[in-house]
Amino acid sequence: MTAAGVRIGLDVGGTKTAGIALDEYGATRATVRIGTEWGADGVIAGVLEAVMALRAELPPLTAVESIGIGIPGLVDAESGRVLHAVNLGVQSLDVADRVALATGAPCFVENDVKAAALGAASLRESREPLAYLNLGTGVAAGLIVEGRIWRGARGTAGEIGHLVVDPAGRVCGCGQRGCIETLCGGGALARAWGADAEFPVTDMLDAADAGDAAASALREDLFRGVAAAVRALVLAADVETVVIGGGLSALADRIVPGIRARQQEEAASSAFLRSLRLDERIEMLPADSPVAAIGAALLGSAPAETVARHEEITHG
Amino acid sequence: MTAAGVRIGLDVGGTKTAGIALDEYGATRATVRIGTEWGADGVIAGVLEAVMALRAELPPLTAVESIGIGIPGLVDAESGRVLHAVNLGVQSLDVADRVALATGAPCFVENDVKAAALGAASLRESREPLAYLNLGTGVAAGLIVEGRIWRGARGTAGEIGHLVVDPAGRVCGCGQRGCIETLCGGGALARAWGADAEFPVTDMLDAADAGDAAASALREDLFRGVAAAVRALVLAADVETVVIGGGLSALADRIVPGIRARQQEEAASSAFLRSLRLDERIEMLPADSPVAAIGAALLGSAPAETVARHEEITHG
Repeated sequence: MTAAGVRIGLDVGGTKTAGIALDEYGATRATVRIGTEWGADGVIAGVLEAVMALRAELPPLTAVESIGIGIPGLVDAESGRVLHAVNLGVQSLDVADRVALATGAPCFVENDVKAAALGAASLRESREPLAYLNLGTGVAAGLIVEGRIWRGARGTAGEIGHLVVDPAGRVCGCGQRGCIETLCGGGALARAWGADAEFPVTDMLDAADAGDAAASALREDLFRGVAAAVRALVLAADVETVVIGGGLSALADRIVPGIRARQQEEAASSAFLRSLRLDERIEMLPADSPVAAIGAALLGSAPAETVARHEEITHG
Repeated sequence: MTAAGVRIGLDVGGTKTAGIALDEYGATRATVRIGTEWGADGVIAGVLEAVMALRAELPPLTAVESIGIGIPGLVDAESGRVLHAVNLGVQSLDVADRVALATGAPCFVENDVKAAALGAASLRESREPLAYLNLGTGVAAGLIVEGRIWRGARGTAGEIGHLVVDPAGRVCGCGQRGCIETLCGGGALARAWGADAEFPVTDMLDAADAGDAAASALREDLFRGVAAAVRALVLAADVETVVIGGGLSALADRIVPGIRARQQEEAASSAFLRSLRLDERIEMLPADSPVAAIGAALLGSAPAETVARHEEITHG
């Protein structure tokens, strides 16, 4: 019998890569945080550096069962290739093959939002359908059904950032007008606010608190956009819970009351909406919750394993 | 060994009930069409009458393996109870128990749109995720994933009729403003058109053809609403195909070119939308296709059976 090894998960972001090593019980054995390097070779070098740094924290001879990588861009999970990861300067990269070759460990690759959805689901006791709504520079969601990532027919399941909710709204980077992302995406809000601040969304919220009319309107857009995203996820896919994460979740205290107030205002005019209890179905992740790295570490494991650590499995 | 029996499926509509009997190969052995009776006892009486009429068409002693019923309203598929079927004058009715007691056959009950989705999926060779979009008095969709009805956490999956796509739009029966249903629901279009015609949507389309500005605007709303529904189904749930049925599908020749033109117009401004090829993902059902009755007949059968008649099963 060999000693059980660890599963490594990496969340390769535009500026930082977060890594985690989970043991067979899902407990964290090591974490690491390094800068992300640019371009295809840089990404691979950074992944290998993070893996080595994690191994250095672990007892000698600890086996690496698998390496999972969450990465922005279009991911073909079967081949482990990523396309159009523009934030990383990557056009096309066979991540899984190159990392597996260099490390000897099985390697799995997933879009970072979908990986985060898997991680967020693994932290919950319920196995009800769940959406993870990422409020970052852009807006996208990942869906988890029966413990698995639900990707749909072509991999666009959860891409609700580009649903149009206001034909008179602002033009989106995608070319449409009034997408959900134009209302509550960090990038769109920063562009609309226009201030040359280090944290433009925080700056906008500060100005709204101070009574600035333009900032207040943008803040209301933010609340309205998140409410629309949650409504779309529930009405189209009927997830039980929408877990909200991403960069803007660091501002939870300043935005959650407004999001709930907006949801309640909308429900006040509609018995149908009230029956959905949307305001009770959102949850915020702690801002520093490493869900994408955790989800990446769970890639390739059986669905049941993603919850076995937290509950007895009661469903066949 | 007993001879294989039939599965009976009934589509209980507001005015008519359509029935079908399928043999073990999925072939149609009998059909029936009777008026729907009002109220709880009327619905049960009508169901039993349709079952008897179907049996009268079949060889004596043909066994009835199951009776499936598609019915508008809120259906608890597990208990076989329907709630709030306002079109039928039913507040609450234990359909499955009462029909099973009277007939001795196992009885399954499902919302009519979800049943139609199952029926539409069974007529296709592909097992890719599918949505059935019902354009009737109201607008709702049913989702089929891996041959099964996907109902979500609370049964609202596919209820995209009440997604808001225009905050400046008309007030919806649900209390919100600018829902998809206000744009392309037959009831909402008839109210907005206001003409005292037997077929108000046809009347509106005729007036639009004749150059009436108000009618042309409503016709454009219809195209825009269907395009928004398809986009929401693909972006949230990523179904491969959206099959369109319901009362308005009788007008396919007059609306499909406009829907596709609207989709292409939207795609022209957005590379992202173009990549989704939404205009290639819609299909119209023939107006008289009995998909809800077929789907009802398939309720309670294993998912594989729903396609076994049409293709060799290639997925485990």
